[in-house]
Amino acid sequence: MSITYNLTTSLSSTSSAFLAPSSFNSRGHVSLPVKSVGICKCIATPEAETGYKTKVTRNPNLGKLQAGYLFPEKKNLRVIILAEDEELGDLMDEKSNEIARRRSAHLLKYPDAKVISLGIGDTTEPIPEVITDAMSKRSQGLSTVKGYSGYGAEQGEKPLRSAIASTFYSDLGIEEDDIFVSDGAKCDISRLQIVFGSNVKMAVQDPSYPAYVDSSVIMGQTGLYQKDVEKFANIEYMRCSPENGFFPDLSSISRPDIIFFCSPNNPTGAAATREQLTQLVQFAKDNGSIVIHDSAYAMYISGDNPRSIFEIPGAKEVAIETSSFSKYAGFTGVRLGWTVIPKELLFSDGFPVARDFNRIVCTCFNGASNISQAGGLACLSPEGLKAMGEVIGFYKENTNIIVETFDSLGFKVYGGKDAPYVWVHFPGRSSWDVFGEILEKTHVVTTPGSGFGPGGEGFVRVSAFGHRENVLEACRRFKQLYK
Amino acid sequence: MSITYNLTTSLSSTSSAFLAPSSFNSRGHVSLPVKSVGICKCIATPEAETGYKTKVTRNPNLGKLQAGYLFPEKKNLRVIILAEDEELGDLMDEKSNEIARRRSAHLLKYPDAKVISLGIGDTTEPIPEVITDAMSKRSQGLSTVKGYSGYGAEQGEKPLRSAIASTFYSDLGIEEDDIFVSDGAKCDISRLQIVFGSNVKMAVQDPSYPAYVDSSVIMGQTGLYQKDVEKFANIEYMRCSPENGFFPDLSSISRPDIIFFCSPNNPTGAAATREQLTQLVQFAKDNGSIVIHDSAYAMYISGDNPRSIFEIPGAKEVAIETSSFSKYAGFTGVRLGWTVIPKELLFSDGFPVARDFNRIVCTCFNGASNISQAGGLACLSPEGLKAMGEVIGFYKENTNIIVETFDSLGFKVYGGKDAPYVWVHFPGRSSWDVFGEILEKTHVVTTPGSGFGPGGEGFVRVSAFGHRENVLEACRRFKQLYK
Repeated sequence: MSITYNLTTSLSSTSSAFLAPSSFNSRGHVSLPVKSVGICKCIATPEAETGYKTKVTRNPNLGKLQAGYLFPEKKNLRVIILAEDEELGDLMDEKSNEIARRRSAHLLKYPDAKVISLGIGDTTEPIPEVITDAMSKRSQGLSTVKGYSGYGAEQGEKPLRSAIASTFYSDLGIEEDDIFVSDGAKCDISRLQIVFGSNVKMAVQDPSYPAYVDSSVIMGQTGLYQKDVEKFANIEYMRCSPENGFFPDLSSISRPDIIFFCSPNNPTGAAATREQLTQLVQFAKDNGSIVIHDSAYAMYISGDNPRSIFEIPGAKEVAIETSSFSKYAGFTGVRLGWTVIPKELLFSDGFPVARDFNRIVCTCFNGASNISQAGGLACLSPEGLKAMGEVIGFYKENTNIIVETFDSLGFKVYGGKDAPYVWVHFPGRSSWDVFGEILEKTHVVTTPGSGFGPGGEGFVRVSAFGHRENVLEACRRFKQLYK
Repeated sequence: MSITYNLTTSLSSTSSAFLAPSSFNSRGHVSLPVKSVGICKCIATPEAETGYKTKVTRNPNLGKLQAGYLFPEKKNLRVIILAEDEELGDLMDEKSNEIARRRSAHLLKYPDAKVISLGIGDTTEPIPEVITDAMSKRSQGLSTVKGYSGYGAEQGEKPLRSAIASTFYSDLGIEEDDIFVSDGAKCDISRLQIVFGSNVKMAVQDPSYPAYVDSSVIMGQTGLYQKDVEKFANIEYMRCSPENGFFPDLSSISRPDIIFFCSPNNPTGAAATREQLTQLVQFAKDNGSIVIHDSAYAMYISGDNPRSIFEIPGAKEVAIETSSFSKYAGFTGVRLGWTVIPKELLFSDGFPVARDFNRIVCTCFNGASNISQAGGLACLSPEGLKAMGEVIGFYKENTNIIVETFDSLGFKVYGGKDAPYVWVHFPGRSSWDVFGEILEKTHVVTTPGSGFGPGGEGFVRVSAFGHRENVLEACRRFKQLYK
């Protein structure tokens, strides 16, 4: 069980080089043993034990995925992150015996380390009571004749759709029936890919959240993984680096059908300015492309950068927006998000994209849990909005602590201002080496930037999701390591 | 909003030909206005209002779907069922203005009818308190440091996977890590289709739950819809009729890759015997096919028919099973199900199917809501199992009432014994005509059998999900109509 097991067994003893009073809190990791079981499952799967094979051919697109996620020389590092980071959990190498062997070696090396995870972008703070009360009440109501409800609308409950429209899209011309409530942005990304099918060409920011590329590969939109450049064929990787202010040079991009654009960005933490988003919308219009704007971190924006792409005139004709309650209200486990598809967005034959998405939502999905939706509605009440603001404020304080730490150590630090992620530059070094150094010497799990695409090489992502005492302790250790 | 609106406005007045004391209860319909909004959305979508179109080509597979769902001469009947039945909601005709016109005409005709829905397979009875208490407690816990949890395992929480394995698959060789917890069987059917991709040939029972065919079309596994035979090209429709005991003549089936097999069946209510399932497993083995056994109604089985395909020796090498808490615990709105993929099930190259499913679950899904999972775990406690048994028993009493009614009227009645669906034969008549007759003369919504495939022609499905007083009242009206 990788580090999880380590965590569990290390709570009552200490032996690391960083023996501050135990600040590790186990509760953020309640679910990790389960996750690692899922991973161990694959590791333990006996192949062809019985000898019988069906005659069903394996989907070749899924075969492509594995090749893309081979970092053969870094297996021992990768396996550690597996149980920690749900995003990078997907990066699992299928050559599992080797992983298991190296993992065991690592556990043997540091059996008592007090590991702190600033790797996974997983919320750690309790959900405000005004929100859990609503979910509890809805649950209780389901046991009564009056409060029971069965199948809900696949598109979401009307009051929630209405509240999302008025809270996030007031005055932007987005209406209640443009909102599709979902069980999370990751799930909606896949459903959007099902809508588009295999014959589209996609562009992604490089680096970016791995689900965009993965789902594209799965749907058959890409060619094979090109090991030399660490990219899949037939995907446009739009480099985002300090040199271009983390906004791609659109003049160098060949026409894509679909552009995934995450702002504020995961992992770089950069939020696009109004001018940049206007450029992006114009680029989409010039090329007849569709932008999928992932705004899951929009409420973390501090300044005047747009929180929705629909703040840009004309965006309704070229853009979809997907978002989530996960990082606003701590709903990573409750599961609730939404996607906006304006009526004005049309395929080349004039058919509305929203109508095909509606069909997919009705056929491949059956609505988010009614209890989660009750929670979402409470999030958008005046008290809920205030409470969410406080949770976000807490994580933003964490971000400041991390930014100041790396700043004070002389690193070039990006992100952090408009997002819960800090993107630290280690010029000329391999992300995986830095990740390994930090883990080895501070027992803090970060995320190697190259896990988000080749453009992340030389960076490490530090997440601000954590208990304050853990963030402070991690920063003390960083200061000791890099002083 | 179609019948929904009608229901809402008819609660306090009566004018139908069946003016028994008002037995219509509105609470089962709390969510319907929302659903109909989703549908109205499409109806209201203005096409190409702005004139701007992207250059993204519409996915041709989605274009195929529409053709398959045109029943042009029955629009006025279909639109009525749209707001009522989530399964047939998918059958929506995109020529929406015509639908809107006919819907309006219908509402004009019977503005005050007391409509009873035995169409949709949606649960109506409250969830037992032992289950809602667990969900309420989990919700409350999320507001505490100790009780909070973020991202869970995509495959489900370990205690729930374990409880599912021991409750439903004890002694069948299915282990906890073969179980993937999900947000429902419908969603898992789509995820399975993503695993298989576009280059497989599928077989379905005819008639069957529409999601199997729909998802196959969406993934590009089929050819175009053939209007003359009411079938998609490149799908094997396995006729299930009274003549063959609702079990297909496998000797007439050309080799499929994937066989969707629902038992107890929706819509016919037939449960396969041990001998039949043994035949099916042998057929799969002979052909190297994979069976996807949908056992969402297994707990409704009265006698000795197998509740799981894994009761059949050798099934683990050829079968997947998908199931759900929806019809056991009234979780249609809470959303929770599971899929079993044994380690022994291998693609032709020896690669385990479970490993690809795991990859899809990790990439396209993020786990079922932790609150729903707490409910699922409570369902499988001794008290929960007893309570679920009582809910199922209640619906089975409804089933008996419906079966006896049609029996007494001289109809040939199928199903009902092992499933909450009664399949009534009207030999020589069109399903849609009978459906229309019943609606017109009794204001009871049933489901026309041909909506489940051409093999359903001449039948009507009557669902046993309803309040007792509504079922009794509907049966009184049936007796008046067909006396």
